[in-house]
Amino acid sequence: MPYATPVKPTAGPLGEPIRGAATLADIARAAGVSASTVSKVLNAKGDVAAATRERVEAVLREYGYRRRGPRTAPLLDLVFHELQSAWSLEVIRGAEKVAQEEGLSLVLSQSEGRSTPGQSWLDGVLARRPTGVLLVLSKLEAAQCRQLTTRGIPFAVIDPDGELDVDVPTVGATNWQGGLTATRHLIQLGHRRIGVVAGPSRMLCSRARLDGYRAALETAGLRFDPKLVVAGEFHHDEGHRLGKELLRSEDRPTAVVAGNDLQALGVYEAARELGLRIPQDLSVVGFDDLPVARWVGPPLTTIRQPLAEMAAAALHMVIGLARGDERTRAATRIELATELVVRASTAPPSKA
Amino acid sequence: MPYATPVKPTAGPLGEPIRGAATLADIARAAGVSASTVSKVLNAKGDVAAATRERVEAVLREYGYRRRGPRTAPLLDLVFHELQSAWSLEVIRGAEKVAQEEGLSLVLSQSEGRSTPGQSWLDGVLARRPTGVLLVLSKLEAAQCRQLTTRGIPFAVIDPDGELDVDVPTVGATNWQGGLTATRHLIQLGHRRIGVVAGPSRMLCSRARLDGYRAALETAGLRFDPKLVVAGEFHHDEGHRLGKELLRSEDRPTAVVAGNDLQALGVYEAARELGLRIPQDLSVVGFDDLPVARWVGPPLTTIRQPLAEMAAAALHMVIGLARGDERTRAATRIELATELVVRASTAPPSKA
Repeated sequence: MPYATPVKPTAGPLGEPIRGAATLADIARAAGVSASTVSKVLNAKGDVAAATRERVEAVLREYGYRRRGPRTAPLLDLVFHELQSAWSLEVIRGAEKVAQEEGLSLVLSQSEGRSTPGQSWLDGVLARRPTGVLLVLSKLEAAQCRQLTTRGIPFAVIDPDGELDVDVPTVGATNWQGGLTATRHLIQLGHRRIGVVAGPSRMLCSRARLDGYRAALETAGLRFDPKLVVAGEFHHDEGHRLGKELLRSEDRPTAVVAGNDLQALGVYEAARELGLRIPQDLSVVGFDDLPVARWVGPPLTTIRQPLAEMAAAALHMVIGLARGDERTRAATRIELATELVVRASTAPPSKA
Repeated sequence: MPYATPVKPTAGPLGEPIRGAATLADIARAAGVSASTVSKVLNAKGDVAAATRERVEAVLREYGYRRRGPRTAPLLDLVFHELQSAWSLEVIRGAEKVAQEEGLSLVLSQSEGRSTPGQSWLDGVLARRPTGVLLVLSKLEAAQCRQLTTRGIPFAVIDPDGELDVDVPTVGATNWQGGLTATRHLIQLGHRRIGVVAGPSRMLCSRARLDGYRAALETAGLRFDPKLVVAGEFHHDEGHRLGKELLRSEDRPTAVVAGNDLQALGVYEAARELGLRIPQDLSVVGFDDLPVARWVGPPLTTIRQPLAEMAAAALHMVIGLARGDERTRAATRIELATELVVRASTAPPSKA
């Protein structure tokens, strides 16, 4: 790019290119404040006026500033959308194990059902300067991403639930493949009318699983019947409600693919209430393979999602990014394999 | 006490009483090291020789030193014996909620199945200086307690599983009362042969629940039959194995009180395998009221242990101690009430 059109991000006040190489003093000069004020903003100390703070943030962004040097705290932030079900616990266990091996302590928080954690959380992060941040089913706003980036705090998203910028590192599971495998298992057992209790359609993982179901039908030459598909939240109650809806219909399915294990347990309850035996009258497949899947009666056939391994992979990714590891930087969007675990909730359909 | 026999803990090098009021300089002088070395020991910096470190710790202890002044980190350490089952998640949720309200971040760790966390964990705590420490089903050695005390870091134990010094703050549940209530519920339904799958006898909570069971039998004029009592770990597999043992016997019980919900689900599986219907052929009562208790078939009657509230109470206790609150100091051993939640796994015994 010729120097004829110098723009801030590539040229400092004296014309030299300083993208990513700006010092604290450069930032202070450009923002018209002292270096100590810039430092306060970087560390989220409270005593900087909002307007000044915004100006400094803008300059940090414009100059592509990245803090260098060792972290002061061997901490790793793990943020949940909500701490719910054994699902969260599997992720915590996976992250805690790797954190301990790496000499890091895990700081846990939840964004109280909001998909984006609040500014007070981010201020806490900037003040304690963790080695990295892991987000679970939760996302950061673009401004929050920039604030972490300028402080040199890498982050990754586990099981992203929506559209993310292409440069946000993520670790997911092969949801589409899981939906396909679950449905093929039922087709191979002889089922032809297969219902779906899907997760919420706003979440990409739900859509991917449902598309896998459709693909399995299509490749087996079976017709897709939208009347066999219902969708709702990933909770037991919703599985119960939606399962009843499906199973009460005239021409009820002989098998149901649930969006996750909790929904599957809700379908169990619906079947009990309607006097349907599992698997004799109804086959059910879950998704996740939480510990409870082994404990219910009958034990649940499900698609195993390697939650602990996903958390471990995301943590390794963040640590690799913190160290500037090249191999890590080359693969910051990964999906781990799901697999079918056959237990006692699936069987050939009865000849009714 | 007369001054004729001056001992270290009550008199400084110059004879004046300084228990609890010793300064860093006092400690340094008595240990024959510099104040900066004492500071390094207090903050668990690595570059102090082991022998020096031990000498400084001894003097800190002798002089009853307590660090004063504000904490540097708004953190709270939560340490689990093991991160297992939804049980842990309930505790985490309770603690996280209060921590967020109090502007504290939760640092999570597990002692990998050991009942006492290791020295590397403690060094991490001393270095990051949290507002307090909560231990779950886990305990500290006397030396670890002293190290936290000299640094002015208060701690409390949630659901203590063994004998603890009388001055260690604890929050538990009324386990004895829970065992009594569960058994009385079955007696009122008409059961006379009531079996117990108890938790491990090394844990006080198991003993208390079992004693509650005995008290319920005795006050109802029923004989205690040791053949109806089996005990093992608080896991699903153990409930399954022990449940089979109980239910295979000639004169099998018509009802079983399980040590916790996971054991109860194991008893469900044993009953299924033996062709016994719940509650027609066998009543089952659990303990804890984990979310899964509502989801299984049939929904489990159980004793609710207020896990989230216990975690919240322990956190408030630690925060109160950190602030030197007198009311908190007056009540550092509390038990929260358990209560019976009747669902569908208990019914009068069939007239066999």
